[in-house]
Amino acid sequence: MLKVPEHQVAGHIASDGKLGPLVDDQGRFFKPLQGDSRGEHEAKFYESFTSNKKVPDHIHRYFPVYHGTQLVEASDGSGKLPHLVLDDVVSGYSNPSVMDVKIGSRTWYPDVSEEYFKKCIKKDRQTTTVSLGFRVSGFKIFDHQESSFWRAEKKLVLGYNADGARLALRKFVSSNSPADSNLTPNCAFASEVYGGSNGILAQLLELKDWFEIQTLYHFNSCSILMIYENESILMKEGDDAPAARAQVKLVDFAHVLDGNGVIDHNFLGGLCSFIKFIKDILQSVDKRDETDTSLLENGH
Amino acid sequence: MLKVPEHQVAGHIASDGKLGPLVDDQGRFFKPLQGDSRGEHEAKFYESFTSNKKVPDHIHRYFPVYHGTQLVEASDGSGKLPHLVLDDVVSGYSNPSVMDVKIGSRTWYPDVSEEYFKKCIKKDRQTTTVSLGFRVSGFKIFDHQESSFWRAEKKLVLGYNADGARLALRKFVSSNSPADSNLTPNCAFASEVYGGSNGILAQLLELKDWFEIQTLYHFNSCSILMIYENESILMKEGDDAPAARAQVKLVDFAHVLDGNGVIDHNFLGGLCSFIKFIKDILQSVDKRDETDTSLLENGH
Repeated sequence: MLKVPEHQVAGHIASDGKLGPLVDDQGRFFKPLQGDSRGEHEAKFYESFTSNKKVPDHIHRYFPVYHGTQLVEASDGSGKLPHLVLDDVVSGYSNPSVMDVKIGSRTWYPDVSEEYFKKCIKKDRQTTTVSLGFRVSGFKIFDHQESSFWRAEKKLVLGYNADGARLALRKFVSSNSPADSNLTPNCAFASEVYGGSNGILAQLLELKDWFEIQTLYHFNSCSILMIYENESILMKEGDDAPAARAQVKLVDFAHVLDGNGVIDHNFLGGLCSFIKFIKDILQSVDKRDETDTSLLENGH
Repeated sequence: MLKVPEHQVAGHIASDGKLGPLVDDQGRFFKPLQGDSRGEHEAKFYESFTSNKKVPDHIHRYFPVYHGTQLVEASDGSGKLPHLVLDDVVSGYSNPSVMDVKIGSRTWYPDVSEEYFKKCIKKDRQTTTVSLGFRVSGFKIFDHQESSFWRAEKKLVLGYNADGARLALRKFVSSNSPADSNLTPNCAFASEVYGGSNGILAQLLELKDWFEIQTLYHFNSCSILMIYENESILMKEGDDAPAARAQVKLVDFAHVLDGNGVIDHNFLGGLCSFIKFIKDILQSVDKRDETDTSLLENGH
């Protein structure tokens, strides 16, 4: 039985009879092949990438595992359609908080149609794509007080400026009520999710090392998904407790091109900018913790 | 006595009664303040940068030293005009080979006029700016056979694709006749100019480290100048011989903006792409040298 994914935060949503991805209860994600050859393009990328021996193993793990294509009943009732079959990257999490960040200072690329170019560059200039080299596309946080997910409103997310993006990245790792926009995000989970040897930052830096040398693919209009479980942090009582399992995954490959011997400077530049935002949050949290400690030490 | 600079390879040239930079015989470079406030903007950048304590000393050395502005007789005969007074970065070289590379995958930036945006993006798409994250703006090589400078034709340079740019970067460090486009560049100077602990690559990597963290300035439409002396390599007979003195300098700051806490991902991405091109050349030269050695060792 296929159903609408609960944890999708951006892209086409399969609700109200629209075409969108589906998931099963075995941890598989079914993504309908998009029209105008983009779907086939994405399938071809997965075929190429999956079997590409030049991609190191430690990089493969940042991509969803691909299981070919399959005809399945489409979410819009239009009958059986070809779908990409992928590992569902959030299966195995109880209440995953998820953020989708589209990387790059442009979403268009050489040789696109004028129409596509104009559509893309307009949105790139309206959002933080041009100014920051990335834009937040959507996110959701598990809210413990409410025991439910809080979703950022799409319209607000696409209207972020630099400060808005910075605030969203802080909010994403905070435990105080996400719904109350008057509260300053407390960044309670920042150290465990963004920091540490297995955290988001460490994973982003590993990706960055690869992007500095890889000339195989240009990842136009791709997103980084950040996923973690905040429940496990709150419940943690000892070293044996489950970790936040913070994970970075790259998704959306309908516009990937051959690198032709040139690095993906568009993705790399945006990734470096994004990394700096994450580093700044970690630094501000470290500074706060130091101040707290020194206050305690001084007997205040 | 001011005269037209002999070693300028891009930008406005002060010849035929046009307005352009001048040099004196004391190693000073006089750049007329450009109209529509760009000149004043560049002067303000130099004022800010020169006194900015947050810029490390080892980074300051990649920028021309600034000596304020001064009224001097303009090259176009229009009388005394304010000029930036800078150290002439090629003074002290006998026969410098020089290349100007404009860094970034766009030369426009947020909040420019539609007219300026359209003009820039058109040229960015026509050149390698979008595809490679940099474009060669011009270069000249000292040709020993001819005992004179060979200059790349501006029209050809602006028409480069990826292969053209790659070839230009090889030609720039070759000793065989630059004028003969049928000859494959021999990259005779690559190891000494691009490689080594003080070479171009080492300098670019030092700049890259800074660009990964600096959020002070966004260097829109800036160029990297590469300068070296090939004569000293050819004449070299011992460790005391003069070195190539390969140097990287950043120039052209009429479009620098405040970073406002965000890294210059546009410059950084382009710089990383440029670095990869230089690394690839060094690697191909190393490989060739290894092959040569193994041929010798095998008695061929």
